[in-house]
Amino acid sequence: MGSAKLSYKDSGVDIDANAVWVDRIQAAMQRTHGPRVLSQAGGFTGLFRLGTGGDGKKAYRNPVLVGCADGVGTKVLLGIQAKRLFGLGIDLVAMNVNDLVTCGAEPLFFLDYLAVNKLDSESLLELIEGVSEGCLQAGCALLGGETAEMPDLYRRGDFDLAGFSVGVVDEKRAIDGRSVSPGDVLIGLPSSGVHSNGYSLVRKVIQSKRLRLGKVYEELGETLGEAVLRPTKIYVKSVLAVLGAYASRASVSGMAHVTGGGLDENVARALSKRCDAVVDTSAWSPPPIFAFLESHGVAREEMFRVFNMGIGYVFVAPERNVKRVMGVLEGLGEAPVVIGRVKRGKGRVILR
Amino acid sequence: MGSAKLSYKDSGVDIDANAVWVDRIQAAMQRTHGPRVLSQAGGFTGLFRLGTGGDGKKAYRNPVLVGCADGVGTKVLLGIQAKRLFGLGIDLVAMNVNDLVTCGAEPLFFLDYLAVNKLDSESLLELIEGVSEGCLQAGCALLGGETAEMPDLYRRGDFDLAGFSVGVVDEKRAIDGRSVSPGDVLIGLPSSGVHSNGYSLVRKVIQSKRLRLGKVYEELGETLGEAVLRPTKIYVKSVLAVLGAYASRASVSGMAHVTGGGLDENVARALSKRCDAVVDTSAWSPPPIFAFLESHGVAREEMFRVFNMGIGYVFVAPERNVKRVMGVLEGLGEAPVVIGRVKRGKGRVILR
Repeated sequence: MGSAKLSYKDSGVDIDANAVWVDRIQAAMQRTHGPRVLSQAGGFTGLFRLGTGGDGKKAYRNPVLVGCADGVGTKVLLGIQAKRLFGLGIDLVAMNVNDLVTCGAEPLFFLDYLAVNKLDSESLLELIEGVSEGCLQAGCALLGGETAEMPDLYRRGDFDLAGFSVGVVDEKRAIDGRSVSPGDVLIGLPSSGVHSNGYSLVRKVIQSKRLRLGKVYEELGETLGEAVLRPTKIYVKSVLAVLGAYASRASVSGMAHVTGGGLDENVARALSKRCDAVVDTSAWSPPPIFAFLESHGVAREEMFRVFNMGIGYVFVAPERNVKRVMGVLEGLGEAPVVIGRVKRGKGRVILR
Repeated sequence: MGSAKLSYKDSGVDIDANAVWVDRIQAAMQRTHGPRVLSQAGGFTGLFRLGTGGDGKKAYRNPVLVGCADGVGTKVLLGIQAKRLFGLGIDLVAMNVNDLVTCGAEPLFFLDYLAVNKLDSESLLELIEGVSEGCLQAGCALLGGETAEMPDLYRRGDFDLAGFSVGVVDEKRAIDGRSVSPGDVLIGLPSSGVHSNGYSLVRKVIQSKRLRLGKVYEELGETLGEAVLRPTKIYVKSVLAVLGAYASRASVSGMAHVTGGGLDENVARALSKRCDAVVDTSAWSPPPIFAFLESHGVAREEMFRVFNMGIGYVFVAPERNVKRVMGVLEGLGEAPVVIGRVKRGKGRVILR
């Protein structure tokens, strides 16, 4: 190097490029901002006024804040390979807010962390616009985030992203599965596909069976890339509508987001320890991508252990509320299915 | 592969190992939990009761929630190289909560995202214990997080981590620099070293000058590894003490966390656009690591553009409050220094 001076830019980080990037993502953020977001241009933080609900009324008697952190796992690698980044942004929001609503919380805001090899504004902007779209679907504000250029940690073209969401629920209306009782009914909402779990296995199948993302497979009726990269469905508005339909008392006793670990592990998280849930797996038809993956070498039991198998979100509701819950969901264009029932037990989920 | 079935474990992800890991981090989380954290074993979310302050009183009239997201950049790579992970956990919390307090917010809770090549419990547990220690130093709860095994995105032994913090401030007490006025005084708090910014440049210097992390350099009086990996100082308790010393009216007009972009960029974020800040860089003595890096080939101007240069946090205070603010800080064992003054201007920071 002789006596040439070392600069930050030489080391692979361009402070000026970063400033341009921050400017460009402002628009993606601002379209998600309602009246509760306080502007603080150039500040260190994002500010969100809790005092009033979206409608301007004082909303919470005993507010409990709810926080979730999640990423989209190795689905990012498939998205990079297929050059489909917009959907990954939706996935990131979905993985967080679908967890958040399980306790009955209204999502308030979202922050993202994006770590990249190099700030390549065009394609990464698509990603952030996906995050922004996800926030609109979830009715929450994209309040801020962090973008880090780390050329020595991430390979060229690679990136990782993590998301974080905060919501609020009145303590008396928080749902934790403790009131789940024998006789309660399990109502499932269809998933849009694989969502964002199990992608190391999806990629293993693609690789070992030499499948091609760009190819239309007859069993799928679309390209494999379209099937496996379809964004995760965001259930927030449907869930809040169900909860909002009952003014004083919970319409549902428990809720589960079917994420890593499948129906088995996740429905178990929504139960009390003195109940089992019996799920009738013939009650719904999974999207064709699941039969496709199974036909390419994944055992049926493993499929259920890793993937959502077509049900992305589960309500547990007392029998007397089932008709109304189903009605609210159908009114929103959802296609709810009764998938099982709760009986006396030990907190297990039995798939039949 | 013949007819052998493909499993999730084959693809590099071990659901059972993940369950063991989740158990082990419970202790690190629980020691940070005060009475405001609601237990929800096995749930999808972390719950935090906002209604009362830490002392049990109703604490907020018009609560504004504040959110921050940040990582520790390529300091992770040095930490991995030197096998010092505990401090990186503290760094992660510090980078978030030091941003959070600049608007006057009390940090409430923290969540982390850890993405790894392989869940190697021993060393990663050290990291999470560092996060837990950071949360104790900041007085906030480690409410949850996500650990993702992504063998195809991260190289063996590599990982990345991101953090998210949420705080709250009463709207009337939020600090945004709008009241910064000519004549106000800049009070700096010493940094513990490089903190967590500029590590791509630090690593470039180490690499191009063939420096060794394990070697004691005379100018440093310790190993280079100790000097560059010292954890970021957490300023939360000192900042909240300064703000708490004034019941009704703000003791300070603006605050800055000196993070990426150095004194210049960060103090500018704490000013109103009708003021300049003039900083006297001879007012304090930077820790020896800065002269060391400069002597190994970084231009002085670039040093100030990238690093904190010994001042990690800056208060802007009206002249009449300076004595009391300094007194509160000294009473906590801090060593505050008057580093400059505000004059009429255009939002610039002038280093002298």
